[in-house]
Amino acid sequence: MLAERAFIDTIRKSHGSRNPAVVRGIGDDCAILRPRPGYDLMVTTDLCLENVHFRRKWHPAASVGHHCLARGLSDIAAMGGEPLACFLSLGLPSDLPASWPRQFLQGLEALARSFKVQLAGGDTSAASLITADIVVLAQAPSGKALLRSGAQPGDSIFVTGNLGASAEVLDRLYRGRHVRPSRRSRHFYPEPRVRVGRWLRERGLTTAMIDLSDGLSVDLAHICAESRLSATIRESDIPIAPHANLNLALHGGEDYELLFTASPGLKVPGRIAGVPITRIGRTHPESKSRNSKHYSSAITILGENEQERPLPALGWQHFSKPQKGIRNLSQSRS
Amino acid sequence: MLAERAFIDTIRKSHGSRNPAVVRGIGDDCAILRPRPGYDLMVTTDLCLENVHFRRKWHPAASVGHHCLARGLSDIAAMGGEPLACFLSLGLPSDLPASWPRQFLQGLEALARSFKVQLAGGDTSAASLITADIVVLAQAPSGKALLRSGAQPGDSIFVTGNLGASAEVLDRLYRGRHVRPSRRSRHFYPEPRVRVGRWLRERGLTTAMIDLSDGLSVDLAHICAESRLSATIRESDIPIAPHANLNLALHGGEDYELLFTASPGLKVPGRIAGVPITRIGRTHPESKSRNSKHYSSAITILGENEQERPLPALGWQHFSKPQKGIRNLSQSRS
Repeated sequence: MLAERAFIDTIRKSHGSRNPAVVRGIGDDCAILRPRPGYDLMVTTDLCLENVHFRRKWHPAASVGHHCLARGLSDIAAMGGEPLACFLSLGLPSDLPASWPRQFLQGLEALARSFKVQLAGGDTSAASLITADIVVLAQAPSGKALLRSGAQPGDSIFVTGNLGASAEVLDRLYRGRHVRPSRRSRHFYPEPRVRVGRWLRERGLTTAMIDLSDGLSVDLAHICAESRLSATIRESDIPIAPHANLNLALHGGEDYELLFTASPGLKVPGRIAGVPITRIGRTHPESKSRNSKHYSSAITILGENEQERPLPALGWQHFSKPQKGIRNLSQSRS
Repeated sequence: MLAERAFIDTIRKSHGSRNPAVVRGIGDDCAILRPRPGYDLMVTTDLCLENVHFRRKWHPAASVGHHCLARGLSDIAAMGGEPLACFLSLGLPSDLPASWPRQFLQGLEALARSFKVQLAGGDTSAASLITADIVVLAQAPSGKALLRSGAQPGDSIFVTGNLGASAEVLDRLYRGRHVRPSRRSRHFYPEPRVRVGRWLRERGLTTAMIDLSDGLSVDLAHICAESRLSATIRESDIPIAPHANLNLALHGGEDYELLFTASPGLKVPGRIAGVPITRIGRTHPESKSRNSKHYSSAITILGENEQERPLPALGWQHFSKPQKGIRNLSQSRS
């Protein structure tokens, strides 16, 4: 493995000045950023741990680097932010071939370039397993970031793209199947919906938004909890990804699509920045008999013949144990 | 172990609104910060990994939490910043008793409170070993942050406090001795020099500054490299901590004191914010025959009878293997 200083110098050289908000990047005790006057700053951090969020034998290093930054960018997208800079803390086993961190950084760098995000600092360390923590900073005009908490009763609920694609691949990997890590696979190279998020924030159409990292059932429950609402979604309206099924679309994570609410009177286009938008349900006042703390009771799903059933928020329980049928690698993707 | 959501709720309740720059803390896709107009933002990240930066049997959880935040605050101190908020990414083994993360957070929280730093977000995950990454954000008036790169030839070199205290304890731990983790021990509860750093920045006395995390020999070499200088320090002027020795004071890390340079004409007080300040040497123009990339040749130490010898920058090599005699746990503390 490269010595720390040589490794940092390599990163410093390949990640030049890219975003004018970064006054000083790698090479001092801290990075220095100068946000635009009148803008708020958004900050998100995401862990990517070997054997929890990825496996070396399944996921190429470039895909892990891409995925790592995509998770952070997806959080930024969910608030309608314009990404500025990222920071990477990277722990590497001493016996790891030098090609691994190089390809990891290439994957991260390619995605960073496409969103003008500057790698502005971080930390490196020895570690027993590959350990990455990504921090992404972004900006939005003061007070304009889209929160989880703004949804009103009667709002329509929308999702971008389609759901279950990532979980479907993970399911095949768990079954021992070989899956080619194609650049077009949303499991290996998810596309954070930064442009859609920003479009929605600029148009002021949206009352609340979240990214689908833990799965629809969990992330809609987050919006319900923070907005103090309940919700009904219609089974037949869920956009299921090719090869996936309803279960994977409802509870599978890591699609990194956006879930948002909008006033029923507003016209939301069927496609934003090239991404299809689907209305899947609506919100209601929080039921008095239901305790909003119990996520599993906030959402109702309408099946065939208008049959109602409660939708359990399965995703976040994967922190304690993997779910049958979904068996997510990731045990925490909030 | 606590489930993820319950754990996050616990953190959210105990870390209320503390810093007015934090518009929105834990509970959404990102935290939102509103820096003061006319101020730059500083960002630093530091990994704290079990068996690399600490050992469960040596370091109490509260000490690890304190140390974790202290490392970030020390980077902020080195730029003269006013800390605002921190973010914690925490990976925890599933068999860890719930008391460990609770005490870890108590240690972190006590230090955060004393500097009005708000824990504003982060991530949690399962992990095979305890994994913590701390991000600290701070502010300083635009263009006023103290860099490593501002030192001029002929500047005086100063350090705060005394050196080698942390490495001396680590040395005893490695020798199998029992060391009581006293609250007053700088190894277990290091005190980041935030007030001294801010005082120096406000007075404009300082040309360059860094915190002593990797050890004097390494961190002075960083200032030399970034300022394109060489330096001479005098052995008899090094303030050695009680029970430590010259070797530990020169090469031992994690003292979290500040190292800074100042124009020779300026009067630097002997004590700042209650902390003793010692002049240990001076800078020189970068020697043409020396390559600044070779850290080991940038610093000369004057011993007894004015005998000169080059001071090797031993610290950063610990990334590849622990040093004899010092055997630092931490393998990267940039």
